Amino acid sequence: MKKMKKSVFYHAGCPVCVTAEQEIINLIGASNVDVVHFGEDKSRINEAESAGVKSVPALVTPNGNVLHLNFGASLADVKA
Amino acid sequence: MKKMKKSVFYHAGCPVCVTAEQEIINLIGASNVDVVHFGEDKSRINEAESAGVKSVPALVTPNGNVLHLNFGASLADVKA
Repeated sequence: MKKMKKSVFYHAGCPVCVTAEQEIINLIGASNVDVVHFGEDKSRINEAESAGVKSVPALVTPNGNVLHLNFGASLADVKA
Repeated sequence: MKKMKKSVFYHAGCPVCVTAEQEIINLIGASNVDVVHFGEDKSRINEAESAGVKSVPALVTPNGNVLHLNFGASLADVKA
């Protein structure tokens, strides 16, 4: 059995984020994704930025690629 | 075992599309996604548009939600 590194889903609680989160969990399984809510953990914004996240919701894959899923808010707005 | 309806991944062969396609296949498995390349099948552009696809690459989930993944090209550009 292949063990997969987890993806990380970053979001900020916006309606677009919530829909995308639900879909990602449906598609890849809750156990394969770490969900980070910036409203609850601002300290991880820098980590996301370093990974290349420009807006939320976004999924950083185990390969390190960033998939920006629709558009909820820019990272600048999240930081403000 | 839960049988899942397939997602549909629409793209147009752009570099952004190819990366996203590979990641989606890694994440959800090739057997869970139908890949539609508009360069090879223009007739499916209308179907995508009806589903709410505005740009490619995009994934339409089994629930009918559209996840626009990064930005490769608008559907208008694809049609042109």
